[in-house]
This record gives sequence, structure tokens and C-alpha cells, in this order.
Amino acid sequence: MINIGVVGYGYWGPNLVRNFAELSEAAVTVVADADPRKLAAVQRRYPAARTTTDAQELLRDPAVDAVAIATPVGSHFELGMAALRAGKHLWLEKPMTETSLQARKLIDEAERRKRVLLVDHTFIYTGAVRRIAELVRAGDLGRIYYYDSIRVNLGLFQRDVSVISDLAVHDFSILDFLLGEHPVAVSASGINHFPGTPENLAYITLFYGSGVIAHANVSWLAPVKVRQILIGGSRRMIAYDDLEPSEKVKIYDKGVSFTDDPQKILEMRVGYRTGDMLAPKIDSTEALRVAGEHFIGCIDSGKAPQTDGRLGLRVIELIEAATSSMRGRGETVYLQRQEKIA
Amino acid sequence: MINIGVVGYGYWGPNLVRNFAELSEAAVTVVADADPRKLAAVQRRYPAARTTTDAQELLRDPAVDAVAIATPVGSHFELGMAALRAGKHLWLEKPMTETSLQARKLIDEAERRKRVLLVDHTFIYTGAVRRIAELVRAGDLGRIYYYDSIRVNLGLFQRDVSVISDLAVHDFSILDFLLGEHPVAVSASGINHFPGTPENLAYITLFYGSGVIAHANVSWLAPVKVRQILIGGSRRMIAYDDLEPSEKVKIYDKGVSFTDDPQKILEMRVGYRTGDMLAPKIDSTEALRVAGEHFIGCIDSGKAPQTDGRLGLRVIELIEAATSSMRGRGETVYLQRQEKIA
Amino acid sequence: MINIGVVGYGYWGPNLVRNFAELSEAAVTVVADADPRKLAAVQRRYPAARTTTDAQELLRDPAVDAVAIATPVGSHFELGMAALRAGKHLWLEKPMTETSLQARKLIDEAERRKRVLLVDHTFIYTGAVRRIAELVRAGDLGRIYYYDSIRVNLGLFQRDVSVISDLAVHDFSILDFLLGEHPVAVSASGINHFPGTPENLAYITLFYGSGVIAHANVSWLAPVKVRQILIGGSRRMIAYDDLEPSEKVKIYDKGVSFTDDPQKILEMRVGYRTGDMLAPKIDSTEALRVAGEHFIGCIDSGKAPQTDGRLGLRVIELIEAATSSMRGRGETVYLQRQEKIA
Amino acid sequence: MINIGVVGYGYWGPNLVRNFAELSEAAVTVVADADPRKLAAVQRRYPAARTTTDAQELLRDPAVDAVAIATPVGSHFELGMAALRAGKHLWLEKPMTETSLQARKLIDEAERRKRVLLVDHTFIYTGAVRRIAELVRAGDLGRIYYYDSIRVNLGLFQRDVSVISDLAVHDFSILDFLLGEHPVAVSASGINHFPGTPENLAYITLFYGSGVIAHANVSWLAPVKVRQILIGGSRRMIAYDDLEPSEKVKIYDKGVSFTDDPQKILEMRVGYRTGDMLAPKIDSTEALRVAGEHFIGCIDSGKAPQTDGRLGLRVIELIEAATSSMRGRGETVYLQRQEKIA
Repeated sequence: MINIGVVGYGYWGPNLVRNFAELSEAAVTVVADADPRKLAAVQRRYPAARTTTDAQELLRDPAVDAVAIATPVGSHFELGMAALRAGKHLWLEKPMTETSLQARKLIDEAERRKRVLLVDHTFIYTGAVRRIAELVRAGDLGRIYYYDSIRVNLGLFQRDVSVISDLAVHDFSILDFLLGEHPVAVSASGINHFPGTPENLAYITLFYGSGVIAHANVSWLAPVKVRQILIGGSRRMIAYDDLEPSEKVKIYDKGVSFTDDPQKILEMRVGYRTGDMLAPKIDSTEALRVAGEHFIGCIDSGKAPQTDGRLGLRVIELIEAATSSMRGRGETVYLQRQEKIA
Repeated sequence: MINIGVVGYGYWGPNLVRNFAELSEAAVTVVADADPRKLAAVQRRYPAARTTTDAQELLRDPAVDAVAIATPVGSHFELGMAALRAGKHLWLEKPMTETSLQARKLIDEAERRKRVLLVDHTFIYTGAVRRIAELVRAGDLGRIYYYDSIRVNLGLFQRDVSVISDLAVHDFSILDFLLGEHPVAVSASGINHFPGTPENLAYITLFYGSGVIAHANVSWLAPVKVRQILIGGSRRMIAYDDLEPSEKVKIYDKGVSFTDDPQKILEMRVGYRTGDMLAPKIDSTEALRVAGEHFIGCIDSGKAPQTDGRLGLRVIELIEAATSSMRGRGETVYLQRQEKIA
Repeated sequence: MINIGVVGYGYWGPNLVRNFAELSEAAVTVVADADPRKLAAVQRRYPAARTTTDAQELLRDPAVDAVAIATPVGSHFELGMAALRAGKHLWLEKPMTETSLQARKLIDEAERRKRVLLVDHTFIYTGAVRRIAELVRAGDLGRIYYYDSIRVNLGLFQRDVSVISDLAVHDFSILDFLLGEHPVAVSASGINHFPGTPENLAYITLFYGSGVIAHANVSWLAPVKVRQILIGGSRRMIAYDDLEPSEKVKIYDKGVSFTDDPQKILEMRVGYRTGDMLAPKIDSTEALRVAGEHFIGCIDSGKAPQTDGRLGLRVIELIEAATSSMRGRGETVYLQRQEKIA
Repeated sequence: MINIGVVGYGYWGPNLVRNFAELSEAAVTVVADADPRKLAAVQRRYPAARTTTDAQELLRDPAVDAVAIATPVGSHFELGMAALRAGKHLWLEKPMTETSLQARKLIDEAERRKRVLLVDHTFIYTGAVRRIAELVRAGDLGRIYYYDSIRVNLGLFQRDVSVISDLAVHDFSILDFLLGEHPVAVSASGINHFPGTPENLAYITLFYGSGVIAHANVSWLAPVKVRQILIGGSRRMIAYDDLEPSEKVKIYDKGVSFTDDPQKILEMRVGYRTGDMLAPKIDSTEALRVAGEHFIGCIDSGKAPQTDGRLGLRVIELIEAATSSMRGRGETVYLQRQEKIA
């Protein structure tokens, strides 16, 4: 039984508490939030949990084995570092930290203390993304040509982070999980339509050494909600619509083949292939439950989580590069990955 | 009655011949194509039209009042210039020419000879785009925030032009028509997945002096066909799906309002507004017919077409800028519009 | 403050308890269920509520003002009658009772004792149905021609009631609410594909004196889930898709007009009219909350609920007539409404 | 080379002429229509074809091998009989005749003279229906439970036939082709909303000896166009949407299984199964072309067409039964198939 303390009971914290409370091998021991009214709500729903307005007290509590932090990103580093130093395993909401330097320090601390550090890139734990990853890794798509994502809707405007940190972050983590490759360059454009606010609309292009090109179109200012990803490969192509209730992932037996046929060279050397479409059954277990069980399993086994600090760091590096490019109106930013952490 | 000669009877030429043949104030007098089999098809369907394999003969034919050119873009300039010099009115398929210099020369020639020069940017003549333009110009959308277009499908790969010239060209012309403003900067990314071919996938961002940001996502390598444009304004937003048979244009009474309410400032200074959605009845007259009648009308009246050479030139300038940026991996290209032509 | 006792904590009971608990003018005082494990769940979530395995005890509890019954339909009459005789106001889940005779007796008892009797035909309290009713009553659709409903999905097969009682019951209540008219005849076809079970698929046609024809296609054996209603009027037509997240109700300015124009009589005397489509903003308050507040309001004011026992009875009469027709392979059943209750 | 005469150049005749003209083994020799303007249109498009306002002349023309009749249904019998008596092979548009007696006489005449008689039930020649038939016949769906069709749109109102003859006729032919079984009973409801016109909306239920139930919902008075068929089987289920451009047929690995598991019997004896969905590639050859080639092939080989007179007759019998039931407000009509023709 892992005893968990949750810091932050705002937008996402209640989901964490509910989810950990439902796991048979975990218990929510303490919940911390600066707002006493929120803690009162915790007491009503979870009479067995203690509450406190003092996060530091929670972090020092010897009854707590692991800490989950769901506060605004500005406090992730400080709270996370304190938790690790107190010997706790650490669950951090995404994005991991404000800067890649902070992320490196957390990774370093966790490794030194042999604590589990999981960053909650939830999409990695969805049935849809896991199924797509199986297809990609098994070579069913052939050589990957591109990844093209649209995540737009009306709101929720954020105060402290841009739409890149809020929405494109999902694509950065999914790409890392699917491709196992870090981009070599990033070009991004974006705009804040309202002075003094973070960018609310952005277009990000990622270039990979293997030739893959990836693109994310993210916005808080669209009249319709869209969550759609296209992935093109030499053998098959995928359309993944996360809003579709029952057929989220469609696998198209479609493609293009190049030829040396002299007849066709006279035109264009392209042949088109089109076949069946398959929408495989997708595991519909709630992603947060899968992630929670994975966290507990990693604490028990000592293995690194699938969304460990290193993946979290690579995502932060992409946020930094994209933000830098965006503020330079699309200027290409080249990524030089440091092999060593810290 | 305007007598029209059509040069090129390949992919688009048959549509031009059919369309001009159906207009009561025009007649197709001659059709030229290098392929005698295609001319035989013309003879069967239009026994009254003459045919020739010699385009120059057509251009010199005194019975021809206006010439429509539907050949590959590489021959547009030469054929168009010869037609103008022979005193003909000129209809050019899009894109107008290979280079902006060629476009300037054609505009100059047409103006000197007082001939009508229409570039067939067909979308400008659709009921959907004309209805959207009315809304934009009447201020119904309020201040325009963004224009976001997706034009993707599987094929048709082109030999001589990139996907920008083939697909993004539609967005360039629509943007010019809607905004009446030329971008100040362009950033584009793209890729040719098959060596030795033009780019088959591209992402283009346009920045406008008024603050509008526009984006086009174009591809010949998508498993599904999408033709969708979102336009966001401060008062209303539009979703235009060109593949939707009956409700192409949807006007959303949705938006975001900023506030100085101190309560809201504590959170984010944003209020959301959501209301009715209206799908107005759209004129379904074939765009080519509208364009054809407009061409005849301009010849009669001496007025400039809505898609005149200058609009065609501005589109070519955007193709050039986007291509230049794309080949520099997203490097921003600034546009300095020359006020004077030629 | 109205104190409410809820009988039955199976499929729908938890929704009732949650909903009444959230109302400021109501409190859930007691919950009864035969299964102690379910009562334990109540205790955990609602420590302030008493629980009992003895429904009779709840019905006799002087602290209870109103009773909500969410048990299988077979016990509705007995429990409901006991509640009324104990002087409680009564909320009954749909369908109201097993037979129309039982329904008449409950209505009679409630009227004699001046108690509120509400049958939970939830759809009547949705924003979509209320908006459609406004349009119908204001004459915006013109003369109503037809109502056509499809409610199909895979499962949930019921043991005690047919698909008519489970799904068509929604259409019966909506039709009653929209038209304010009772059908004169019913013809239904249906089938139980698995011997010894109730019908799992049925087609019901209702004929109205005013000329309206209504049809419901209901099934537990469809590969896709559909909840769609078309309503045709002489001036406008409606398509209502309850699964559509944001544009549930679409109002089409479309129709047919008959003419005496001799030209048109030679063909068919029909002219078609097609115009804008409007998807009005729909109030998205949870229907159960609207119903709960309405129940409390009726208790306070003594007014009859919009879904009172008489509406519930008319629905039961339609279920009986449709079932009778269905078991006679579509034989028409004529409805003779008794003016007097009991 | 089969020489074909086409009678009737109204709504469907032009499609027949175009289609036969494109077949390499057929030629359109003569076209007859009462309206000289229509014949002028034939002359312009098909200079090689003769035209006549006298259908009898066409029927007697010794140069004609086969006659295709695309006139209103009221003249099908007289013209078809004359064609057969003149020794021609016969292609009849659907519905075959006004009465089943007329259909029997035509079948008899064709068999006596050993002429091919094809009724143009076009859907049987579509890639979608042929693919579904393969699945049904191979047992891939398991035991068939139901067939449920919706064919609704706004217009075209017909003068001489009801919506059953116009739209439900497609379902009658598809059902005959898929099931190879004739219904034992029919129950139909319908209405003509405009006095003096045929029914414009109808609901038809067909009962089969094997236990299959089929339903067709047809209307000329719907605000949206729908062409959707659901077919449920014990192993798989199909959703066929004829308006879907690329994925018309979806095969769901979904179903219900009944059990004797005592645990489950306590609830309902039903288990649900849900798996992948497959949208197979569908042959997109125009159905009319497939039918035309099939007609020529049958003339050459002497084999009976897949949509021969007997299928056409069975469809007429269903139209008659459904119409009879509809005019009796859903009264069940039992079908007693006569084994012998005439």
C-alpha cells in the first residue's frame, strides 16, 4: 500500500485524488491546498484523508510515500525538489517545470535518491496512443512520413502558460513516445491576440533527422473543438480523432508508391494505392487509472516510468525551442541534445 | 457574342470549353492542343468548334476575341503574351505564371493594350467565399483574428509545381479577396518525401500588418480529404467546409471578451460568449459559370475582373515568398510590395 | 427544505440521490435498498443520509416529505400507493406503472390527498425538447406533418420490459408534450430475437386526429448508437440529434408548397423551398436538475408538474396499445380516451 | 455488337443512352421520345443515333436487338410486351410494371420467346450491395436478425407513384438479393400530406419465415438526405451509408450472445461483444455500367440476369402488399407466393 499526498486541489487535483483513492494498492493520506474551502470539499468526499493548507507539512509527513503535485507550473520545481529531498517518490503534472534547467535538476535529484519521478503526460496512457505506438513500432505503417495534429477549441485561456505549454505539449510527448527520436530543428509561429497575455494560437513544425516532419496547430480561439491527428507512413496511414466516441483510430491501407515505369515517368512517377480501413477496438480504461497503476508499479519494481523525467525534460526542451522560434516569427531553432543530464 | 479560343484540352480545358459553350454570350470558336486524340474528342462533342494542334495559329485567328489558356504553368507567360500582343483578351488558369516578373510583364502588356486579363482563381467565384466576404466586409465578424485552412488529400502529385502552387494558392487568393491586405511576412515549412519531386506537404504562416495571422496546411499525402477553413473574429467565427454538401458555411456567434473586472483579473481576464449557429443558404451556381459570365461582362464594360492580373501577381509573390521560406526551413521572408507594376 | 426519501439505489437511484443532494431546497434524508452493499456506498458518499433495507420503514418515516421511487417498474404501484397513503409527495421513475389501471389509481389517490405526483419523463426537462416545444407552440414550424424518431444502440437488454417501455417511452412523452394531442390509432411491429425475452426491436406508428403521423424505430441490437428525431412542418423542419455535443437542434427553413399554377400542375403541384439553417443555443442545464427543481416548486406551489400522473398515464396507454398491436403483427389498435380518470 | 433502342429520354433515359454508348459491345441505334426537343438534344450529343417520336417504329426496327424502356411506369407493360413480341431483348426501368399480373405476363412472354428480360434494380449492381451480399452468403454475419433502412430527403414528389414505388422499391430488391427469401407478411403505414397526391411518407415492415424482420422508412419530406441501412447478424453487423464518399460499408465485430451462465441469468442472459470495425474497399464502378455489361452478357450467353423478371415480379408483389397494408392503416397482409408464373 502506497500512501500518497496530493498538493493542489484546483482543476486537476480532484481527478488525481479520485483516481488514487480508487486504486487498491494506494491510499490518499493527505491533501494540501492554500484554499480552506477546497479542503472542506476534500473532507466531505474523503473523510479518511487529512487536509492541510501547508504543503511543506505534507512533504515532511513520514506517513507519505509519494507526492503528487498539481499546482501551477511555477511551483513545480520548488515543491518537487522538496518532496524528493524528503525521500518521496514524485508525480508531477505536465508541463514538468518552467525551464529545462529545473527539469534536469529534478531528474538528477531523483536518480541520486533512487526515487521514481513520473511526469503526467496522460495521453501516453490512453488506449488510442498505445495502440498507435504498437503499430508504429511493429512497422505496420512502414516508414513514417509525417505527423500532423490539430488541437483547437474555444478557451480555456491560461494566465501563466502559452497555448504551446497547454496543448502542443501533448503532441510533443506523443511524438517522443511514438518515434523514440528527438527533433533536430523547430520552427513555430504564434500570436497573442490580447496584449499582455500568453500566445493563444500557435503553429509548430518539428524536423527529425530520420526525415519525419511533424506539425501541431493549437488554439484557444476556435469556434469548434477539434482533436485530430494524421500520421502518414509508406505502408499505411492513421487518422486519430480523440473526440470520436467509438472509432477513435482509423488505419487506412492507403499510400503512394514511386515507380520507374517509363510510362508513368512521363506523367508523374506516382502510383496510388487504396484499400480497406480498419478501426481497431481500443482499450477504453481511463488513462489516469493506467498512469496511476503504472506509478505504483514503478515504485514497487524500481523501474523507470514510461513518462519519466527524461521524457518530461525532452518535452520542456521542445516547449523552449518552439517558444523561442515563435517569438522570432518562425526562425528555425536547432536542438543540440546534451547526452548527459545535469 | 464573344468568340473564345481555348489552348490546352488536358485536365481543366474540357471544363473551360463546356462552360464557355454553355454561356449565351460566348462561343468556343477554336480549341488547340498538341494531342490530336484530344482534339478528336472535342470534335465529337462540339462539332461547331474548329481544332488545331498549333496554338500560334489560334492566337493569330482574327475570329478569336479572347483566349483562355489551360496549359501547364510553364507556358502561361509565352502563350499569354502572344495572345495579348495579338490583341486578345486573356483568361489564364492559376497560378498565373512561373515568376512574379512574368506576371508583371503580362499585367503591363494588358494595361497598355486595354485588354481584360482574368486569372482563374475559381474559389473567388464560389457562393461560399462570396458570402464569407460579404460578412467580413460588413463587419459581422468584428475584427479578424485569424484564418486557418486545411487542404489535404491523397494525390494528385504534380510534376512541375509544389503543393503550395497547387493547393495553398487557393488560400492566397481567398485571403487577398477577404482581407484586401497583403501580408508583411511569410514563414513556411515543407517537405518532399520522394527525392527529385516538388514538395508534397507544406505549412505556411502569413503575418499581416493589421495583426491577422493566417495559416495553410496543404498536403498530397493524407489518408482523408479535408477542405476546411476556420476564420475567427472578435464578434463571430466561421467554419467553412467545402466538402459538406449542404451546409458549407457555419457562422458561430461565439467569442472571447476581455474585461477589467478585478474578480476576473484574478483568474484570467477572459469571458466566453457562445450563442446560435447559422448556416446561411449559399448560392450553388457553378463557380466557373460565374467566372465566365464575369469575364464576358468585363470585356463588354472594360472593367477590371475581381481576379485580375494584379491579384494574380500578389498570389505569385506569396508563392515565391513561401517557397523561399520553405527551402530555408521556416526562415521568415519579409514582403516589400512595390507600389508600381513593372 | 423538502426532505426526500429515495427507494432503489440501482441503475438510476444514484443519479436521483446526487441530484436531490445538490439542490439547495431539498435534502436526501433516507435511502432504501434491499442490497446492504449499495447502502454502504450511500453511507460513504452521503454520511448525513440514513439508510435502510426496509422500504416500508422509509415510507412511514415522518421526517420524509417526498418519496422518489427508482425500483423496477413491477413495484412502482405498490410502493407509490403506500407513499401517497402515508401522505408523501411522489416522484416515480418512468414508466409510471405496469398497467394503465394502476396509473389511474395512483392519480386518483394523489388528487384526493392533494399530493404532487411527478413521473420522471426526463426528456421533457432537457433544453433541446423545451426549445423545440417553444417553436412548435409559437407556430414557427407551421402545421406539423410528422415526427420521426430513431433510438437504437447495442444493449442494454432488459429483463422485465420490452424496448418499447425502455426507449419508445421517450418519444411518447415528447410527442405528448409537443403536440398536446393523443393519438387515435397505433400500429406497431416488433420482435424478440431471443426466445423468452421481451421484444428488443420495434417499429411504432402513431396516427393523430390532426393528421400528424409519428414513428419510432427503437432497438437494443444496433451496431451504432443513434438518437435522432426529424420533425416536419409546413413552414420549417427540425433535425434533433441528441448525441451531437454542441448543435443538437437544427432548424431548417425548408419545405414544400403546393400550387394551383397550371404550368406546375402539368408536372407535380409541388414547389420546393430551401433557405438558412439555424442551430439555436440550447440550455445545457442537466435535465434531472431542472426536473428536481420543478418537483420542489410544485410541492411549494401546489401546481401540477409538467410531467404529472396524467401525462404518465397517457404514456402507459400508448405502451399498452403499441404492445398489443406489436403482438398482433401490426394490427391497428384504436385508442378511446376515457375523459374521466378512475 | 448489340444494337439498342431506348424509349424515353426524360429523367433516366439520358443515363441509359450515355451508358450503353460507352459500352464497347453495344451501340445505341435509335432513341424514341414524344418530345422533339429532347430528340434534338440526342442528335447533338449522339450524331450517329437515329431519333423518332414514334416508339412503335423503334420497336419494329429490325436493326434493333434490344429495347430499353425508361418511360413512366404506366406504359411499361404495353411497350415491353410489344418489344418482346417483336423479338427484342428487354431492359425495363424499375418498378417493372403497375401490377403483378402485368409482370407475370411479361415474364411468360420472355420465357416463351427465350428473350432476356432485365429489370433495372440498379442497387443490385453497386459495389456496396455486392460486397454485403458476399458477406451475408459466406455466413460472415452469422444468422441475420434484421434489416433496417432509411431513405429520406426533400422531394422529388412523384405524380403517378407513391414513395413506396419510388424509394422502398430499392430495399425490396436489395432484400431479395441478400436473403434469397420472400417475406410472409407485410405491415405498412403511410400518409399523403397533400390531398389528391400519392403517399409521400411510409413505414414498411416485412416479416420473413426465417425470423428476419426488415423495415424501410421512406419519405420525400425530410429536411436532410439520409440513405442508411443497418443489418444485424449474430456474428457481425453492418452499417451502410450510401452518401458516405469513401467508407460506405462498415462491418462491426459486435453482437450479443445469450448464455446459460446462472450468474448472468440473474441479471439478463445477455453478454455484449464489441471488437474491430472494418470498412472494406468497395468497387466504385458505376452500377449502371455493371448492369449494362451484365445485360449484354446475358444476351450473349442466354443466362437469366441477376435482376430478372422474377425478381422484378417479387418486388411488385411487395409494393402491392405494402400499398394494401398502408391503405388499411398497417393491417398485416400475408403473402402467398404462387409457385407457377401466369
